[in-house]
Amino acid sequence: IAPATAVPDELRVEQTAIPGLLILRMPLHQDNRGWFKENWQRAKMTALGLPDFAPVQNNMSFNASAGATRGFHAEPWDKLVSVACGKILGAWVDLRAGETFGRVVTVEMGPQTAVYVPRGVGNGYQALADGTVYTYLVNEHWSAAAKNSYTFANLADPAIGVDWPIPPERSQRSEADLHHPPLAEVTPFAPPRT
Amino acid sequence: IAPATAVPDELRVEQTAIPGLLILRMPLHQDNRGWFKENWQRAKMTALGLPDFAPVQNNMSFNASAGATRGFHAEPWDKLVSVACGKILGAWVDLRAGETFGRVVTVEMGPQTAVYVPRGVGNGYQALADGTVYTYLVNEHWSAAAKNSYTFANLADPAIGVDWPIPPERSQRSEADLHHPPLAEVTPFAPPRT
Ligand SMILES: Cc1cn([C@H]2C[C@H](O)[C@@H](COP(=O)(O)OP(=O)(O)O[C@H]3O[C@H](CO)[C@@H](O)[C@H](O)[C@H]3O)O2)c(=O)[nH]c1=O
Ligand SMILES: Cc1cn([C@H]2C[C@H](O)[C@@H](COP(=O)(O)OP(=O)(O)O[C@H]3O[C@H](CO)[C@@H](O)[C@H](O)[C@H]3O)O2)c(=O)[nH]c1=O
Repeated sequence: IAPATAVPDELRVEQTAIPGLLILRMPLHQDNRGWFKENWQRAKMTALGLPDFAPVQNNMSFNASAGATRGFHAEPWDKLVSVACGKILGAWVDLRAGETFGRVVTVEMGPQTAVYVPRGVGNGYQALADGTVYTYLVNEHWSAAAKNSYTFANLADPAIGVDWPIPPERSQRSEADLHHPPLAEVTPFAPPRT
Repeated sequence: IAPATAVPDELRVEQTAIPGLLILRMPLHQDNRGWFKENWQRAKMTALGLPDFAPVQNNMSFNASAGATRGFHAEPWDKLVSVACGKILGAWVDLRAGETFGRVVTVEMGPQTAVYVPRGVGNGYQALADGTVYTYLVNEHWSAAAKNSYTFANLADPAIGVDWPIPPERSQRSEADLHHPPLAEVTPFAPPRT
């Protein structure tokens, strides 16, 4: 687990063990009212290596209780994920066909951290505080019908081995997330041939 | 004040007294974990009349205490504003040159409400709960240098007449927001001539 870091003075972008998965460390401008952040800033972030990913949708999920856990979901689009309120353990597993298949990255995230998740990398997180709101931008429109084509892996699979701070068995998960396959049974994500 | 409304089953877009200022009523998909919302969805929202405004930046402001009040700021770009956590009174005053100059709209907003704010309309809000996070998308990059060209009005001006639930004199405001002019002294916003 990468430790939660202090709030940086300047925006930084870091590479990880999963190719294309980027960690963004963001300043929080503090004042008498609270703080202000640029959660996505196209020009500054692309200058530091974030893809110019052209989002068309912004989603938010609210987690009533610490422990709520979601994942792993890999869709055929890219995401910039971050925290509006509260704290999470973010976790990713590379589900793309190739030699990095199965690689895992975890990051403890408060509002000062964002992660860019390229398509094909399984996305998951656990809320570490009651009332946590997770927010993300994606560059394709979601549809319920398209869900059949997504790639999923089980968040509790010991072969993936995420050390969730709160045991998933004792936390809120969706019915769907209980039944995703272990890594050994995942059909790797392959981009459509053109 | 438009009352806080129940969470709708379907996304709705409503006109207001300020031309181009639109209220979006959004479903919150509830489950055992909490809720999920599409805070911006380009295809569905443009189909209902939201401009295809092409955001390049996503900002968030955190308000430690109920009462923190910000505004009125009119910049030369458009915004889609909403609430990630907590509750606000959103308030807008039309600062565009023309016959609707000075018109005011207020909306009590939780996470199920968003407002599209066209450029030239002064934007303000008051946090009504501790720990409120406000989030917005804009279609130009902000810069500190450009601030001189923005149009501001005083959030406590009785001629604007917003009935803030918590008196601004007893709440957290920025130094800048204390000194904006009353409506009578505002130079109306006029789009640059081309
Ligand atoms: C993703 C998405 C979902 N929904 C609806 C469908 C459900 O009624 C509800 C919750 O969807 P779920 O799929 O269970 O949400 P969750 O487990 O948090 O997973 C979502 O968020 C994940 C990010 O954490 C993504 O990786 C998943 O692909 C995405 O589906 O929201 C929408 O209305 N629009 C959407 O874009
Ligand atoms: C708008 C903006 C601000 N900042 C920095 C400058 C300050 O250090 C800090 C807070 O900026 P302020 O201007 O005081 O924030 P606030 O009063 O909430 O007003 C902002 O948010 C308002 C929306 O509520 C906008 O209408 C204003 O134009 C915008 O400036 O964040 C950025 O780094 N990037 C930005 O895009």
